[in-house]
Amino acid sequence: MRINEIGEFKFIDRISGKFKDLLLHGFLGIGDDCAIIPYNNKEDYVITTDMLIEDIHFLKDRITPEQLGYKSLAVNLSDIAAMGGKPLGSYLSIGIPAETEVEYLDAVMKGYHDLSQKYQVQLLGGDTTKSKQYLVINIGVIGVCKKGEARLRSMAQSKDIICVTGFLGDSAGGLKVILNQLPETKDHLQLIRSHHLPEPHIKEGTWLAQHPEVHAMIDVSDGISSDLSHILRMSGKSAIVDLDKLPVSDTLKRVSSKQSWDIDKLATSGGEDYVLLCTVKAGDFEKLNGDFRGIFGSDLFPIGEITDGENLIKWIKNGKQVFLNQYGFDHFNS
Amino acid sequence: MRINEIGEFKFIDRISGKFKDLLLHGFLGIGDDCAIIPYNNKEDYVITTDMLIEDIHFLKDRITPEQLGYKSLAVNLSDIAAMGGKPLGSYLSIGIPAETEVEYLDAVMKGYHDLSQKYQVQLLGGDTTKSKQYLVINIGVIGVCKKGEARLRSMAQSKDIICVTGFLGDSAGGLKVILNQLPETKDHLQLIRSHHLPEPHIKEGTWLAQHPEVHAMIDVSDGISSDLSHILRMSGKSAIVDLDKLPVSDTLKRVSSKQSWDIDKLATSGGEDYVLLCTVKAGDFEKLNGDFRGIFGSDLFPIGEITDGENLIKWIKNGKQVFLNQYGFDHFNS
Repeated sequence: MRINEIGEFKFIDRISGKFKDLLLHGFLGIGDDCAIIPYNNKEDYVITTDMLIEDIHFLKDRITPEQLGYKSLAVNLSDIAAMGGKPLGSYLSIGIPAETEVEYLDAVMKGYHDLSQKYQVQLLGGDTTKSKQYLVINIGVIGVCKKGEARLRSMAQSKDIICVTGFLGDSAGGLKVILNQLPETKDHLQLIRSHHLPEPHIKEGTWLAQHPEVHAMIDVSDGISSDLSHILRMSGKSAIVDLDKLPVSDTLKRVSSKQSWDIDKLATSGGEDYVLLCTVKAGDFEKLNGDFRGIFGSDLFPIGEITDGENLIKWIKNGKQVFLNQYGFDHFNS
Repeated sequence: MRINEIGEFKFIDRISGKFKDLLLHGFLGIGDDCAIIPYNNKEDYVITTDMLIEDIHFLKDRITPEQLGYKSLAVNLSDIAAMGGKPLGSYLSIGIPAETEVEYLDAVMKGYHDLSQKYQVQLLGGDTTKSKQYLVINIGVIGVCKKGEARLRSMAQSKDIICVTGFLGDSAGGLKVILNQLPETKDHLQLIRSHHLPEPHIKEGTWLAQHPEVHAMIDVSDGISSDLSHILRMSGKSAIVDLDKLPVSDTLKRVSSKQSWDIDKLATSGGEDYVLLCTVKAGDFEKLNGDFRGIFGSDLFPIGEITDGENLIKWIKNGKQVFLNQYGFDHFNS
């Protein structure tokens, strides 16, 4: 049986089952945005890692080296943000084809340093090695969060309001602009920017984790249809999501309208938004959102509700249930 | 300028210089076997990471998947051992070509689990992703050591005895057996085993780190000519190494004699031995070695001495100085 027949998540399940016997008290292992490792009486460490491979996760001629360095770190910082953590240090392994220009690598490291500096993240170590043909980047990030305050995927409660900390779909729109080689209009460049230079929501994440009414949290890396499912599966819940409430930028609306793109599909399944999705105790949402708006100048966008059930998302559009399949949404089950 | 023109270590120097400004008090960053991260009043965390790429670090048809899983983790545990640390948990990122058999990956994970179990190392997280063509494995390991007792490359002192915790050259011999496709004799299989299933010297490392007379420490991954140089560079010292004192197994002696291999070259430059090299306060060596022998049943092999100077190794054979070049040792400077 080939790996592409069972997929990433089933393979991870196979592995995590086998290693359960070795897990120690006070540690959280496989299954969330980060692992948790004990630090001191007041804090825990959180650790995450991500691998990016040329021609799978990026095309060398479509992203500048600065952007590549920035984004490789950003997607890891986003995982720290999803736990409510503050990043402290990173580890960089890089597999480099022999003919790679040092100037290219210097530019990768400049983008990496720029983002490291913005959030004061140390580079603590790594590994540099030859690669046969493709550039390979693996990054690990260690962060810190208040003891017991890390937000897990398993913490959603029925009737929680589901909300996100920013626009959905811009990054996927940017990828379509790149792949379809659309002209360099202001709107198109804006979407490409969202795809190449996502801002990890670290400040938002640490702020949200200070509020006990914020229950589960995850970062939107694969699209909410996939990422919300992780929360539902780990929490043993279902959800209703109103597609009409998904926060979509005016830029994406304009471009999608011109290009006849399925905006709901981009916003739910496009991925790489790197905003946070969290669930908030129902009665406390308005107050929390007001405070959030006061600090961050933008809304916690409510998009649906956690319900009793077993890992099903009920999608609503114009007040009616619709179904998501690989082509987009329709009124019949996929 | 291409990366292969400046090499791995110069590239690392470029990076570490740029990131020095971000390093916090209490942390040790790039430049040793592990980074050091504060834990509590009594302990520090140590973290290391290593990347292995198919056709660069391993050939899929020359190493079984169990051995690959075992060895990928072993080389990381060896870095923890070199700090005097005890491993606690690992992170595994794996880039998998689509046509890879799940049974192959299960076998990789079995080898990984066997070694994890032996040293009680948790699997705390990771990333699984597609790879275009080559299998890519990146492992990070976090361990713990007593506060202030981690052994750094910079700690060597003049007149220290340089010693190693096991045989040198067997692994390089095993690689030659594999590449030359020599027949499966008992001796050849023994060398291949040393190459595929190195034992990380964790117990030796933690024991040595409890003794203040043990100064600098490193694991022998690239061969002592390279690894001892790291110690000399970081400590601002030179060294004399007596080739006649290098511990070489009878197996390697027999095979090298038959195959006319340069045994000194294998033992100094072959690499992947994953024993520890440490420097010990001169007057305390005999007592320490006696205690070590009592516990581990084998010697701390003394191979030379730290001297004043600037990162030069003086190699001695039959009482005379010899010089190491890319072809081996000769009596003239390379």
